[in-house]
Amino acid sequence: MTVRRRASHLTAESTTTRPETLAVEEPLELRIDGTAITVTMRTPGSDVELAQGFLLTEGVIGGRDDIARVEYCRGAGEDGLNTYNVLDVRLTPGVPMPDVDVTRNFYTTSSCGVCGKGSIDAIRQISRHSPGDDPTVVSAETLTAMPDQLRSAQRVFASTGGLHGAALFTADGTMLVVREDIGRHNAVDKVIGWAVENQRVPLTGTVLLVSGRASFELTQKAVMAGIPVLAAVSAPSSLAVDLATQAGLTLVAFLRGQSMNVYSRPDRVEH
Amino acid sequence: MTVRRRASHLTAESTTTRPETLAVEEPLELRIDGTAITVTMRTPGSDVELAQGFLLTEGVIGGRDDIARVEYCRGAGEDGLNTYNVLDVRLTPGVPMPDVDVTRNFYTTSSCGVCGKGSIDAIRQISRHSPGDDPTVVSAETLTAMPDQLRSAQRVFASTGGLHGAALFTADGTMLVVREDIGRHNAVDKVIGWAVENQRVPLTGTVLLVSGRASFELTQKAVMAGIPVLAAVSAPSSLAVDLATQAGLTLVAFLRGQSMNVYSRPDRVEH
Repeated sequence: MTVRRRASHLTAESTTTRPETLAVEEPLELRIDGTAITVTMRTPGSDVELAQGFLLTEGVIGGRDDIARVEYCRGAGEDGLNTYNVLDVRLTPGVPMPDVDVTRNFYTTSSCGVCGKGSIDAIRQISRHSPGDDPTVVSAETLTAMPDQLRSAQRVFASTGGLHGAALFTADGTMLVVREDIGRHNAVDKVIGWAVENQRVPLTGTVLLVSGRASFELTQKAVMAGIPVLAAVSAPSSLAVDLATQAGLTLVAFLRGQSMNVYSRPDRVEH
Repeated sequence: MTVRRRASHLTAESTTTRPETLAVEEPLELRIDGTAITVTMRTPGSDVELAQGFLLTEGVIGGRDDIARVEYCRGAGEDGLNTYNVLDVRLTPGVPMPDVDVTRNFYTTSSCGVCGKGSIDAIRQISRHSPGDDPTVVSAETLTAMPDQLRSAQRVFASTGGLHGAALFTADGTMLVVREDIGRHNAVDKVIGWAVENQRVPLTGTVLLVSGRASFELTQKAVMAGIPVLAAVSAPSSLAVDLATQAGLTLVAFLRGQSMNVYSRPDRVEH
């Protein structure tokens, strides 16, 4: 997940040349039954989880049983070499093939056309889970301890400073899984893909923590996986708050030190 | 570009409810001559710049003259209302229509198939500009002053904490333009789209500063616009460094306080 490259390090006093550790970035093409669905730039590792999490949060699969087989495609590189950058997912017979470009259609198949309200409606129509009824309660103290746990577990970030992190916790603060990636959405897909692999979807009773901001896309992923609490270290967007409110998801942001903001369903956060 | 929502603010001592300012996030569907090309989640504002910068950095247009007209589509919303979230670009007669999904094909049309080397080759084949020959030299002192200039100019970030920033500078440190967006790539597209609008592409003699990390995608955009120096406040990825090295772009990262790392073409940074 890392490589070394020489770089010039300049300070006010001096210039030195030294090896620097970098996070690896490579494209991953995801295919379903041989048809290319999307290409994402990602940090290699946990690719099957990434695919499973992506497919679940885009509404293509409902769980592990909807996937028959996942394999890297041979012949994607020069001389037929396997670059390990093309992953083909074979769906279980009976599971419908999605529209060709799931990422594009997702935001646009709605009564309102292309707008925030339409994007929210689309998720409400497609989601198999609703976090609204989840009775989970988590203490503010448990939440404020989570960012430090995530940072301690982010090994590649520590060496490169280049990766986003995502982690799943139980409501009592036990960390279940942590994943890192150059793309924030990929880190979340990997974490949710881990849950798919372990038959833990819907993720009732859990908290999803992300190292950055809470966008619409990350909020969508939490809703689609049935997660009741999404916590972000940085700011939320307007559409993230609107989706969380309508879906009954608790959205926590600016989770720093001993404080936080709760933008929706604050009844799940106990002082 | 901002909205207000009520949120619960929790500290170790108390819980208060107060209005919070959020960055607006809305989808934008980009069409070329009526055909949908991509949907991006963006902060509304500077949409025409965003479209122009995207089309230039994906190799669809070479400059302002390749676009005949840009307009918001009516009828995209309920009751035929204009949601201002669908933008149609009409190309100048003679400019070829790109492959339907430019974002997907870009990384894969190469001899190597899907891999980092292939992604770099694709850009080298498609790029109309090469920063390699640009004789620009910028002083380390000028570079270290840029992040503060960007932060001072980021008005929405100051109120919401939710936006990425990008800015173009001349080599003597004069800021030409700054743009903000919920998506880091969008902020860069808006800045480059400003240059397209003002007939300043290729952007010889300039520095592009980004508030976050230097990914492959952002490096690609700099190369495609003929920018000789890309500077990032945070870490670069492996593929960003590899592309910068091969394209002759100077890649500066971890630009913080008085120090920085230079990963490629350090001859353009003068101590």
